[in-house]
Amino acid sequence: MSGPGDGSGSLLAGFWYPVCAARELGRRPIARALAGLPLALFRDEAGAPAALVDRCPHRNAPLSLGRREEDGTLACAYHGWRFDRAGACRRVPGLDDPGGAPARSATAHPAMEQDGLVWVFSTPGPMPASRPFRLPNLDDPTYTTVRHARSLSGSLHAAVENALDVPHTAFLHGGLFRTPRRRHTVEVRVRRGADRVEAEYAGEPAPAGLAGRILAPRGGTVEHVDRFVLPCLTQVEYRLGRSRLVVTTAFTPVGEDSLRLFAAVTFRAPLPGWLLVPLLAPVALGVLRQDARILAAQAANVRRFGGERFANTELDVLGPHVGHLLRRAARGEPGELLEVPPTRMEV
Amino acid sequence: MSGPGDGSGSLLAGFWYPVCAARELGRRPIARALAGLPLALFRDEAGAPAALVDRCPHRNAPLSLGRREEDGTLACAYHGWRFDRAGACRRVPGLDDPGGAPARSATAHPAMEQDGLVWVFSTPGPMPASRPFRLPNLDDPTYTTVRHARSLSGSLHAAVENALDVPHTAFLHGGLFRTPRRRHTVEVRVRRGADRVEAEYAGEPAPAGLAGRILAPRGGTVEHVDRFVLPCLTQVEYRLGRSRLVVTTAFTPVGEDSLRLFAAVTFRAPLPGWLLVPLLAPVALGVLRQDARILAAQAANVRRFGGERFANTELDVLGPHVGHLLRRAARGEPGELLEVPPTRMEV
Amino acid sequence: MSGPGDGSGSLLAGFWYPVCAARELGRRPIARALAGLPLALFRDEAGAPAALVDRCPHRNAPLSLGRREEDGTLACAYHGWRFDRAGACRRVPGLDDPGGAPARSATAHPAMEQDGLVWVFSTPGPMPASRPFRLPNLDDPTYTTVRHARSLSGSLHAAVENALDVPHTAFLHGGLFRTPRRRHTVEVRVRRGADRVEAEYAGEPAPAGLAGRILAPRGGTVEHVDRFVLPCLTQVEYRLGRSRLVVTTAFTPVGEDSLRLFAAVTFRAPLPGWLLVPLLAPVALGVLRQDARILAAQAANVRRFGGERFANTELDVLGPHVGHLLRRAARGEPGELLEVPPTRMEV
Repeated sequence: MSGPGDGSGSLLAGFWYPVCAARELGRRPIARALAGLPLALFRDEAGAPAALVDRCPHRNAPLSLGRREEDGTLACAYHGWRFDRAGACRRVPGLDDPGGAPARSATAHPAMEQDGLVWVFSTPGPMPASRPFRLPNLDDPTYTTVRHARSLSGSLHAAVENALDVPHTAFLHGGLFRTPRRRHTVEVRVRRGADRVEAEYAGEPAPAGLAGRILAPRGGTVEHVDRFVLPCLTQVEYRLGRSRLVVTTAFTPVGEDSLRLFAAVTFRAPLPGWLLVPLLAPVALGVLRQDARILAAQAANVRRFGGERFANTELDVLGPHVGHLLRRAARGEPGELLEVPPTRMEV
Repeated sequence: MSGPGDGSGSLLAGFWYPVCAARELGRRPIARALAGLPLALFRDEAGAPAALVDRCPHRNAPLSLGRREEDGTLACAYHGWRFDRAGACRRVPGLDDPGGAPARSATAHPAMEQDGLVWVFSTPGPMPASRPFRLPNLDDPTYTTVRHARSLSGSLHAAVENALDVPHTAFLHGGLFRTPRRRHTVEVRVRRGADRVEAEYAGEPAPAGLAGRILAPRGGTVEHVDRFVLPCLTQVEYRLGRSRLVVTTAFTPVGEDSLRLFAAVTFRAPLPGWLLVPLLAPVALGVLRQDARILAAQAANVRRFGGERFANTELDVLGPHVGHLLRRAARGEPGELLEVPPTRMEV
Repeated sequence: MSGPGDGSGSLLAGFWYPVCAARELGRRPIARALAGLPLALFRDEAGAPAALVDRCPHRNAPLSLGRREEDGTLACAYHGWRFDRAGACRRVPGLDDPGGAPARSATAHPAMEQDGLVWVFSTPGPMPASRPFRLPNLDDPTYTTVRHARSLSGSLHAAVENALDVPHTAFLHGGLFRTPRRRHTVEVRVRRGADRVEAEYAGEPAPAGLAGRILAPRGGTVEHVDRFVLPCLTQVEYRLGRSRLVVTTAFTPVGEDSLRLFAAVTFRAPLPGWLLVPLLAPVALGVLRQDARILAAQAANVRRFGGERFANTELDVLGPHVGHLLRRAARGEPGELLEVPPTRMEV
């Protein structure tokens, strides 16, 4: 559980991860895992999400099987010990004073709700100064936003690379998404920062097929940026005239080779959202299914061969940089800044 | 497989364990596991149960797939080698003399039938001087006895502690069993011996709810003793006037975190057994189901966290002593004698 | 994965193994495992079978999910890299020159079609001088040949020994196959060579039961030879007058304790094949089912006991020699030549 290359979902210290949609967490506690760390999520008396490591300090029953009490604590289902959002034991039935002994405390992680998601900070303790990544355009009425969540088999590195990889789309999604009829030369610029890397594509023609015709009825050249942001976020942006499309995806590691995907697709187009969403959603979900299938097969194959052995070409624009950032972050170090001179590639 | 704290069912040397109900073992051999040790059980020509390690010395086929021959031996299903109750190879089809070579013998454990159960001695070899634990009151016509058997997920230590633990009943079984309406102070006395530990509760009111009203229609104070006896037995006794209730339970370790429970509930009450059993059995089975669920969740949680980390309070009356006895027995040592001065607790 | 005694299917270097029936491999690539080594099988532009290690060098997706292109290459399903039957990367979509870098090559094993089976050579590289084992009598019109394939649980060593073991047939298949009514003394001669061992039985009466009566209506004495040939083949031959029966079986190791059996039963008898096959096939399949059941039970038992512990008698005629050959071959050494003086045994 130590890096992107080992196929496991590894938890990076000091980052916010989305763990569920806000509406999944109601009055009953729920269980979610973050890179193998089991969490009990509940809402305190003010309705704010709270996250305790899912193990009662008394007899190690899962706290997520417990219940939210009226005082905003989470009571273990076994003996009824109660814990507040900071993990302090507030009551042991049968004892006058539960005592504040650390051995009787649950471990608490900072948790908060933002942009429709419940986010948990990967390092236990008090609320940090940093805030979770913001989803774009949620408050702009000229944008339509669609959400999707699903589970995936695969390593974080492989899923992020897949989400930001251009060449596979022509082959794996041939017909659905991009059509390989004509080849175009585009110019790519890569910039890597402390917590992110992005690739900017210039000279790319508007997408072919239905999606392209809807977003850009008269064709044209798109501005296209692909971006990875630590610990597990990707963003794909298209601009064409006044049209915009931004796909933001979090790939939260759940366990060994298992991820939870939270996607927000936000766009502005010549046609209204209520018309476009039913037209485009089936295509997007079809693409996602194809990606999920190949990622699962890739992960299973890496597992049965006992590890990854990848060969890169210059078409693998962002994957190696994502690996660099994940490996550095696993050691608690920021990514090394890098600006790659523009290169040309065919799409 | 070495102690109570490792979550595995560990086999203690030199003890009798029940492995099945006597009526489960007929003319056909059956397979049962004792703390990970596979056994083939069969009845010899006199009908007495016999236990061989479930591996033919020839080609390691499971002997439990074989058949009981007319001469009282167990014949392997593969090549027909025959073994007597002591494990000696009595016949190899095609050989005139099977020979008495130890390499051709199966390993035999002492086995006997008692109180409706088949018991196996955990150390192979000749019949020991010791006898299995006796179930109480089976021959007393003023008592009614009900049996129950089922499988459980959980460690032996956790299941024994659960069976003898008072505080969880108010919370986990709230409503079904004890009602937490009023709190009472009782006095607890703990005595630990070489192979057992017991807690005697004084000043405990008769149980509330249906069960209490039936057993003690006019209320009163019960005498209540909880007891653990090595290697895997618990006993809960209630006395109130002429009424008696004794629940004896064996938690036979089967494999990693799996147990087979054999319970005998024996009682004498103002109302006749044939009336009480159908009234009380559903409640008792409901309590057992709740316990089984929390024990399974606890065991799975301990496993995914890589081990136990328990915090004790003075309400955990017997659990630590049970752990002491199991750890000592795993090293072949008797428990240290101990008499804990009476303490008070609220129930 | 190093020898016959460890219960795993181990891949011996420098041998041909059958991996599927020829008709299983059509235009679509298929996945097969050879002793834990995943292979993608496909047919090149000439229709000849080819075998690549089932991992794309680019992102490790299974090549068996890909498709056969018009140029006879296998294209990976993820990014469309194309490989020829020698594993060379012939095209990377988006790159002008895929380059011949070894890191971009897939690993190829020699493969060929022979006698209705696809055979793969266990050592990657160019086509070796040796050829696969020939199935007998396929071109002789006086013979009838029946094929059967199925999966088995068990170690290679145990399955081979079972196929060549005489004593178990009276017991395990009693009634179906040989009947233990009368005992006969036969003379056995064992000869072991560099890559094979065989036992010749003299003085054996014609088989009892239906099969015997059909093959040899007037009884008589059969000539019977049992044979193991490295890496995984067995042959059982019966001759009686002009009648012949040869059962050739390959037990290809697939994974840990899993095998794929390819059997060819070829015979010449007084009655025509079209009459005998429907009469005898149910009996043969019944014998095979019984063997498969005991082999699976044996393998599971060896696994739960942590390894084999076998006791041999003089009735275990070929098993120890098979073990010798497999262990030597695992070290790359030929078997030691051995001629065992004739011994007598009862059947």
